[in-house]
Amino acid sequence: MEKEINFRLATRNDLEQIVAMLADDVLGSKRERYGLPLPTSYIKAFKAISADPNNELVVADDGNEVIGVLQITFTPYLTHQGGWRATIEGVRTSASSRGKGVGTKLINYAIQRAEERGCHLVQLTTDKQRPDAIRFYEKLGFQATHEGMKLKLK
Amino acid sequence: MEKEINFRLATRNDLEQIVAMLADDVLGSKRERYGLPLPTSYIKAFKAISADPNNELVVADDGNEVIGVLQITFTPYLTHQGGWRATIEGVRTSASSRGKGVGTKLINYAIQRAEERGCHLVQLTTDKQRPDAIRFYEKLGFQATHEGMKLKLK
Repeated sequence: MEKEINFRLATRNDLEQIVAMLADDVLGSKRERYGLPLPTSYIKAFKAISADPNNELVVADDGNEVIGVLQITFTPYLTHQGGWRATIEGVRTSASSRGKGVGTKLINYAIQRAEERGCHLVQLTTDKQRPDAIRFYEKLGFQATHEGMKLKLK
Repeated sequence: MEKEINFRLATRNDLEQIVAMLADDVLGSKRERYGLPLPTSYIKAFKAISADPNNELVVADDGNEVIGVLQITFTPYLTHQGGWRATIEGVRTSASSRGKGVGTKLINYAIQRAEERGCHLVQLTTDKQRPDAIRFYEKLGFQATHEGMKLKLK
């Protein structure tokens, strides 16, 4: 029988597993720093996210462990007649759960949250070095209508 | 003598001029609804943006009128070792001020705000139907490394 996946807000106790997932990734391995105890920068960011009513750090929990994570940011904009948008970022699933549809369920959960919050649009950017991710989002209905432009600061 | 441009947070009194700018645009004209009195959805969105410490609606003011606008959203993320990002959206300059470098100054102001807020990255998405905008941002140092993917909700 397939285990039921529960989608819920992340708690402080999930943070080690979340950071391990973020670091276990081709691009993530270059920029994350996983080790116990966790670097304090992650704990500080977790607190800032949790304190912000317009940010939700969501995990997929299979009853034993956290097998997926993403962050949703809800933003009010003037454009589109004052419409709210949901921005998805930091999507990862655990190595052991890949290919089992967890990512799809996770994104569908985020879309549901966006609807519940009255958003007219869900958006995300994907690194052009991740062609599989681009196809994954296109299958879910996303369209690559925009260039995702980034400027690194010192 | 060139007029000095002042960059500041938008106030409720600027809102009519801002919405007029958003509507006076090839893509904006299809999705905005400018008329006086302003549709209440804009006023509601303005209040939500103003109440959120992680959102700043910035205008360029030449002393006589508002000639540019953009919104900056500051977001704490777990990725990049718990780094903050600044997301720019809704960038417009008034028809009368175009070609005078107002857009460049406005984006540079937003970059400065991102630095002041300790962000490691400034990001935005530009519609692929705006090739001039893409070149404009590339000149300012942005790189189109990502696909900007959007999903419209009903």
